Amino acid sequence: MESLRLSNFSSSVVDEIRKFLAGKSETLVVTHFYPDGDAIGSLLAFGGMLQQLDIPYVLAIDDKCPGKYDFLNGIQQIRNLKEAPLNKEYYRVVILDAGAISRIGSAYNAIGTGTEILNIDHHFTGDIYGKINLVNTEAAATSELLFDLFQALGITVTADMASALFTGILTDTGRFRFANTTGHAMHVAAELISLGADAGVLTENIYYNMSVEQARSIASALGSMELYANGRVCMIGLQGEDRITETEGFVEYAASIKDVMLAVFYCEIDKDLFKVSLRSRCDVDVSAVASGFGGGGHRKASGYRYRGDLVSLKQKLISVLENHLDNRKHTSA
Amino acid sequence: MESLRLSNFSSSVVDEIRKFLAGKSETLVVTHFYPDGDAIGSLLAFGGMLQQLDIPYVLAIDDKCPGKYDFLNGIQQIRNLKEAPLNKEYYRVVILDAGAISRIGSAYNAIGTGTEILNIDHHFTGDIYGKINLVNTEAAATSELLFDLFQALGITVTADMASALFTGILTDTGRFRFANTTGHAMHVAAELISLGADAGVLTENIYYNMSVEQARSIASALGSMELYANGRVCMIGLQGEDRITETEGFVEYAASIKDVMLAVFYCEIDKDLFKVSLRSRCDVDVSAVASGFGGGGHRKASGYRYRGDLVSLKQKLISVLENHLDNRKHTSA
Repeated sequence: MESLRLSNFSSSVVDEIRKFLAGKSETLVVTHFYPDGDAIGSLLAFGGMLQQLDIPYVLAIDDKCPGKYDFLNGIQQIRNLKEAPLNKEYYRVVILDAGAISRIGSAYNAIGTGTEILNIDHHFTGDIYGKINLVNTEAAATSELLFDLFQALGITVTADMASALFTGILTDTGRFRFANTTGHAMHVAAELISLGADAGVLTENIYYNMSVEQARSIASALGSMELYANGRVCMIGLQGEDRITETEGFVEYAASIKDVMLAVFYCEIDKDLFKVSLRSRCDVDVSAVASGFGGGGHRKASGYRYRGDLVSLKQKLISVLENHLDNRKHTSA
Repeated sequence: MESLRLSNFSSSVVDEIRKFLAGKSETLVVTHFYPDGDAIGSLLAFGGMLQQLDIPYVLAIDDKCPGKYDFLNGIQQIRNLKEAPLNKEYYRVVILDAGAISRIGSAYNAIGTGTEILNIDHHFTGDIYGKINLVNTEAAATSELLFDLFQALGITVTADMASALFTGILTDTGRFRFANTTGHAMHVAAELISLGADAGVLTENIYYNMSVEQARSIASALGSMELYANGRVCMIGLQGEDRITETEGFVEYAASIKDVMLAVFYCEIDKDLFKVSLRSRCDVDVSAVASGFGGGGHRKASGYRYRGDLVSLKQKLISVLENHLDNRKHTSA
């Protein structure tokens, strides 16, 4: 039986982090704006460690946390820099889960010429901006890396820290569904349950927490469903009176249908202005599709904004998606 | 770090199973009708072990397997006794995941006076019907127990066996959501990934595989949403032209809404005949509610059939659910 192996990082970086923490000076810990479960989870868990080490700290994000994470213990500690900007520089800054330093927004103002940065991340990036960099793209989540780091440092993972780290792994793997759901990620999740994370409570709070308005909008969106390319492209959307602001994850409903390879969700956000989300369940790279319309994202999930009417949005997008599917067929032939 | 501990079963039962298998005579392996992912997964994995041990075997269920499991390697081996009944008795019969022997249906005909039964299960039951019984209600799934057994017996778990066992744990824990999602269940899932189970492929096939008809019906069902008891009861349903036959899991949409404690899904299956599914997200026992209407189930999930019109169905059910919520308030006051 394979035992839990540590993520692939060197003992020298652990030594550097140990020295960084030994300074005991006030530490600013930040993560990226548009924070997701891994950003928030890793921030809270890192705070838990600093508390344990008696190091004064500030947790900050240049954004609001999505309401579905309100139930996590300690979340009220996180300072929203949009409401309460930082007014001084910090000698020590820890940046978690941010593939580029630009992603910390106004927290950048707290960095002076003498600031030591500790960068802990699992994103693929050329921007190695820390004095110390614990970057491992094999980890499913920054929370997974932090668990391994805590083990290496001999930190006690409390139930609250375990819940925060589990949140990060849960959300970054899409509930243990994406290709990053490795045996190691799952082993860490198992350890976190043993340490007090409640998988049921965390999953219910994060994924079974729709508003009534959202449920009604999902009904409208599914009611608008159109299939193209012999059922390989599924498009759903909201416009006019049906539109709402919180539509995160709606594209998944289009991607839940058998044989669908490319899923589209559009939402009118203003007169003749649409937000478009794309999901790929095949080897078509939807970040390339979104780039063609001025947007971006990942191979499997991307998005863009479209100015124009819905008819032209659909015509242009469907034609591009059909081309991608056709090229794919030619390639594999 | 806690290592993977074996489920709580004695070495003597493992010795008995070793002797049972040493006989090498043709073995019938069955599970319960209305088979779910754990029934099918444990059946396929047990077959994999028997193949490895060069023991001739028949895998059988007195039912059809739901189509969403068609992608599992080896599933075509499973004999549907509704189509091809057994025509002889077996000296050795293995019964998996069946809390009562009545749940194997017509497979019971294969049991004679001299038949040795090996019963492996995780259900709570008074019916200990095997000659050998490996029953552990602490396991999330029979598949979890089988993994531990394979380890104890020194069986090699192939990638196909790992995928089958992962399917069992995945589905019986509701995608790692129900209260049975223990650290041990998760550790076993992690091992199975390391042994070749692909969490992403398995989850996509089982949970992201709706028909277009189902997606349209979910739209209709959500469109019918009604809230009662200050939003603590949510009811959705299908009737008339909107009704379809495959509605497994539809009640989850009603149970996905914030603050909903009791969720209801009804579906008209014939003129004035409804199938009603109930889900509880609080301490109200919905199996008691269903029993009151002649149905049954578990504390958290139950159902019944109702003969009458939709108006009376709603009136009667809502009044019972409101009473349960009120009594609950009084108890906790």
